[in-house]
Formats: sequence, C-alpha cells, structure tokens
Amino acid sequence: MQTRKMQMNKVYMDHAATTPVRKEVLEAMQPYFSEKFGNASSLHSFGREARDALEESRKIIANIINAEPEEIIFTSGGTEADNMAVKEIAFPNRGREIITSKIEHDAVMESCKLLEQMGFKVHYLDVSKEGIVNLNQLKKIISPKTILVSIMHANNEIGTIQPIEEIAKICKANKVYFHTDAVQTFCKEKIDVKRMNIDLLSASSHKIYGPKGVGFLYVKKGTRIGALLHGGGHEFGLRSGTENVAGIVGFAKAACLAEKEMQSENARLKKLRDKLIQEILKIQGTHLNGSREQRLTNNINASFNRIEGESILLNLDAKGIAASTGSACSSKSLEPSHVLMALGLSHIEAHGSLRLTLGKSNNEKDINYLLSVLPKVVEDLRRISPY
Amino acid sequence: MQTRKMQMNKVYMDHAATTPVRKEVLEAMQPYFSEKFGNASSLHSFGREARDALEESRKIIANIINAEPEEIIFTSGGTEADNMAVKEIAFPNRGREIITSKIEHDAVMESCKLLEQMGFKVHYLDVSKEGIVNLNQLKKIISPKTILVSIMHANNEIGTIQPIEEIAKICKANKVYFHTDAVQTFCKEKIDVKRMNIDLLSASSHKIYGPKGVGFLYVKKGTRIGALLHGGGHEFGLRSGTENVAGIVGFAKAACLAEKEMQSENARLKKLRDKLIQEILKIQGTHLNGSREQRLTNNINASFNRIEGESILLNLDAKGIAASTGSACSSKSLEPSHVLMALGLSHIEAHGSLRLTLGKSNNEKDINYLLSVLPKVVEDLRRISPY
Repeated sequence: MQTRKMQMNKVYMDHAATTPVRKEVLEAMQPYFSEKFGNASSLHSFGREARDALEESRKIIANIINAEPEEIIFTSGGTEADNMAVKEIAFPNRGREIITSKIEHDAVMESCKLLEQMGFKVHYLDVSKEGIVNLNQLKKIISPKTILVSIMHANNEIGTIQPIEEIAKICKANKVYFHTDAVQTFCKEKIDVKRMNIDLLSASSHKIYGPKGVGFLYVKKGTRIGALLHGGGHEFGLRSGTENVAGIVGFAKAACLAEKEMQSENARLKKLRDKLIQEILKIQGTHLNGSREQRLTNNINASFNRIEGESILLNLDAKGIAASTGSACSSKSLEPSHVLMALGLSHIEAHGSLRLTLGKSNNEKDINYLLSVLPKVVEDLRRISPY
Repeated sequence: MQTRKMQMNKVYMDHAATTPVRKEVLEAMQPYFSEKFGNASSLHSFGREARDALEESRKIIANIINAEPEEIIFTSGGTEADNMAVKEIAFPNRGREIITSKIEHDAVMESCKLLEQMGFKVHYLDVSKEGIVNLNQLKKIISPKTILVSIMHANNEIGTIQPIEEIAKICKANKVYFHTDAVQTFCKEKIDVKRMNIDLLSASSHKIYGPKGVGFLYVKKGTRIGALLHGGGHEFGLRSGTENVAGIVGFAKAACLAEKEMQSENARLKKLRDKLIQEILKIQGTHLNGSREQRLTNNINASFNRIEGESILLNLDAKGIAASTGSACSSKSLEPSHVLMALGLSHIEAHGSLRLTLGKSNNEKDINYLLSVLPKVVEDLRRISPY
C-alpha cells in the first residue's frame, strides 16, 4: 500500500464500499487454504481441525455482540444475511405485514419488493431530513399483522445512525421480530443484541478489513426462520454449503482486532471527519446529507449545487482519490439514490452528492490533499455545468 | 503438506469432500486481498482493477465449458448454484413439474423437497444397480407440464457418471430446461455446454484445488430464471452481493490449471484407482458400489459386509488416512445414504460403505499404505461385529 500510495499518490476514501484485508487477518487465514484445508463436515482429523477453527471463530464473533455461538449463522456476506432475514422470516408467515424504511440497503429493499410481489404488505417508513426513521409512524403502523420490522443500524450512504434500541423496544412490546442490517456498524458501534433486544442482525467481513465473501446473520434462539440455502444442513440446518473456513477465520480475526481498536479508531476518524465536513461546507452551494450528530465517525456525504457527483468522483479519481457518489452496489445505476430522495432532495441535488468514507489508511495528510483538490474540481465543474 | 505427511504419515483420500488450495492458486489470489482490494462495483481505479480481474476470471471459466462470459454467474459455491438453478427456474413457473433423480446431491434434493411443499410435483427417477439414471422412465414421465430436469453429471458418493448428453437431448426435444450439478466433474470431465445442450450447470471451486466459498451457475442466454439473492444487482442482476474477487480469481486459476492437466491427471488417478479397486475387492465380503466403467477416475466406494463404514473411517483416521463414508455434507447424519439406498442396498449394506477419493497428493505409496492397513481394520471390526 505504501508503495502504491507513493508512486501514484493514491488516497482511498471509499471504506464503506470495501476495505483491504489487513495483514494480521491474511496471516490468520493462510494456514486454512492449503494446510488445514479439511471440510468442516468431515469426520477425520482434517475435518476436525477445520471444524475447530470454525467453531472458535463463531465464539469470537458471538462474544462481540453478546450472542450465543449457536446464534451466529455464517453466510456469503451481508446481502445473503439480509435476504435470509427478510425472506425467511416472511415465508413461514405468508400474507402478513412487514415494516422497513425508505433508506434501507438494496439487499433489504429488493427482498421486500419481492415479498410485495408475493402478496405481502410492506410499509416503508419515512425518514426526517436528517435521515432518522419516524418512530411515531412506526408506532402507528405496527399491528398484530406485523411479522417483521427491518431497520438498518447505520445507513451506508449518509452514515446516519438509527435509534435501534427504541425501535427494538417498540417491536418487543408488540411481539414483532426486529432485524437490523448492521453491515456498516458491526465492530464500529457498540452492539449488544441481548440488551438492545435485537432478534436478527446482518454483518459483513469485507467492511472491517476482513475478506470478501463472508458475513453472518445473528438469529436469536427460538426465532421462527427458514433456510435460504438448502442442502447438507450446515450451520445448524439454516445455511447449507461447505463452510468457507479460511474466510470465516479471517472474518473473526478482523472482528477481534476492530473491536479492540473501536474506541481509539473512532476518535481518530471523527477528528478527521469533522475537519473534512467543516472545510467542505466552506465551499459555496454545498450542504451535508444526513445527521450531523447521529453519524458514523467515518462518513461524509455532501451535495454540491449544479454539478453531478459522478463528475466529481471521476475528477477526484484522476487525481488519485477514490470516492463514491453513494452506494457502490448501485453505482452503475442512473437512478438517483433512493436514500437521498427519501431525505427530500430534488433529483438534481441527489445527483450532486459525493460520499467520502474514511478508514485505517487515511491520515491528516490525505485530508489535506483532498481539500487542496476538491474546491478546484467543484469550481471547474460548475463553470461547465448545464444547470 | 510434505512436512505434515512425514511427521504423521497423513494420507488424504477425501478429495470429493474438499481439496487443498494449490500453490499457484493462492499466489494468484494474494494481490486481491490487500492491494487490489477494490469493490468491483466502484467507479474509481480501485474498483476498475477489481472489475477487470473479475471479468478476466469470468472469461477463463466460460471458455473451459464453451459458454459466453455473460452466461457465468458467480455464487458462493455449488450449493448456492444448485439452489438457484432449481428454485429460480421453478418459481416463475409455479404449479408445474420437475424431474430429478433419487441420487442427487442434497443441495438439489432438499431444494426439490421445498418445492414439493410449495405445491410443485417432483418426480425422482430410479437408477440402476450401478447408479445410472433410467432414461426410459425419463422419456415416459417428461411432459408439457415439465419445467426442469435436474440430473447430476457425476455422483459425489459413488462416482457414477450419468449419460447427460442423452438426457439433454430428451429435454431439448421436449423443450424442457436441463440443469446438471457438475460439482464433481468440472475440470475433471470434458464439458461443452453448447454441444451437450446444457441450459444450467453448477460447479464449485474447492473441489478443484481452488478456495472454498466460490462457485458458479452457468445460465444459457435467454433462460427464464429469477434471482436467489436480491440487492445491488450484481452478476447481471441475477446474484447480488459484493463479488468475492480474490476467491473468483483463485477459482479461475484453479480451473485453468485443472483443465490443462485433466487428461494426464485422469490417466494417473485411474491407474491408482483401478489398483485400489482390484485389491479391495480381494477382501472377503466386499463389493464395489456404482458403475465399474462409467465412473470418476478418482472414486472408490465399497461396502464391507457386517461392519459400519464409520467404524472403518475412524480406524483409518487413527492410522493417518482420511476417508469418508459418503458425502461429507451429510456425514453427521445417522440416516443411511440415500444414494446407496437408491442402488437397492439394504440398510446394513448402506451403512457399511467406505468412500476413497484420490487426488493430486496421492501416489502409489499412499495406495500401498492404505492396502497394508485396510484388510486388518476390516478383519478386526468383523471380529467384534454384532451382525
């Protein structure tokens, strides 16, 4: 990384899209590719050493969110975990109602749309201008017909953190399952599934310096849920498929490290973030998207009047800075972000957004470099803007 | 491996369960963990280099089975590919009929059982004593109501290779989609999806010395199929979730190497296999399960009268030999193998089976070691057998 950075002055500010696997994680994974390579379902010694690593990883992850090991179902990532939570809570309870929000990740959103096609009623809660879910609306809509409330912990585009404890309380009082997509918060915000009354929680490895292709769904004991992937009955019968042991070991290592460093890293990132926000807002015709206070410590999302986010992104890329206009998952879509539209932004404003998400590799120098480049990029783009 | 083998005299003969990642594969994967770590959906340079690696891998895989790159949908493994093929062909065509066999892998079997619960009619074709699917029965059952025929290319327990070209012809004549689970044959048997009229084909990376957690589903252009995982619309909208770039690069490398070595490695393994079969059948009260001729070059599956396969397995394990009683996926189940039962074996015979699956690490010495150990193990177990 250091070499690349020096050669090309590369600054990566897209940590919400993905992160590099950290050195310690890759080291932890290595033995499980070619030496301890057994199938965790095999009964012989190769199988047993894989199984031991798998179960040790499960314990580490469970411990971080105060769950029991058997409540952790490893998946291929956050998307699979979200799909499983939403669809497999719904299917055994066909014909009833689900509540989610207008700013969920596509994995929850598109799963809900599928359920609508199948005859489920889905309510999409409004959010405030700052991106906070409307709790009064939730209280009004939730009913004996509701089978699931799915509200993300923090939004992937604008970084707004939802009051999930309060939401969970409302769900508990109404005996409704509560799922939260914690892909952006696992090991970044304190999570205690017992204290916070969470029934289902999705997380992903590659957002916390672990490998891609691994995630988990926490499923509280006793939850009535079906399997999304059928087959050999792995993961307590809830997720079939040979376990990706190396990936899971890497995920556990990444989680373990991230949890230890959470407080200090959050403090460090918050300082960088606040400087960035302060300086970016000095550019004329610019506003911050999402809540100023209830916000991930590494997220900046700003709209720049009269210019397109994608043009800013490409100009920054040419200067070695990797940023995003919103979710990487839908970056190829021409549609404006459904998240920014839900905040009440116009089409043009929604198209003018830039997301910067900081991480371990970023320092004061990166911030200064971005700030030395961005105002000029915005100015140049505005000069040629058709608006 | 060499060190382990020498220290503990370890002989791994369970290559149908999983294989170690080979050196060249791990080397190919390395840069994609921590350096070229971008999200393949990101528009900046980090994203583009990940996207390039992804698309290059897709081309390599497509080329091996004579498919177009856009017909390869990367998944988290063979189980996900099988689930997607069976369920997502079925769902848009609800209420109609599916034909499969009595010896399919659990990933197809359990997906079919789910469909039965949902009102689909599933026909399970009989197999001969050798494990070959009954084509006359297929011709009789296939009808305008049939939407999918799913028959595996080679069986994971007994290694029997099915006449999938003939099956595909019958399907084509009846305008029915044909899916084959090729997890045990991809890069081991020649596959040409165009010439062989295959509409859908599942494969897995960790069976061919690639990493776990990666597979693909080949979907012929124009096939009417839905998505199993919904979200950001990755993989041509058919499989959402951030692509596991390192894993996919490793899979492509493994496939590329395995395809090149296919002929010579098959010839080498066949010789070892035939010696093993010949010598094992000299043990009294022993018979081979599956076809003698239409058989994977690395598979031996034998039943030993009056003793349990699991006892043999544990005794061999104590002597450093890793074997299996059948599928690793269901190795913890007390039920006899549904595959062996379909061959007409009794419960006791089905429980007495031992599977040895050879691979790159095995040589003549391993075969001789096994043969020096197995007869005594069988003899000792028979002496204490309750039957």
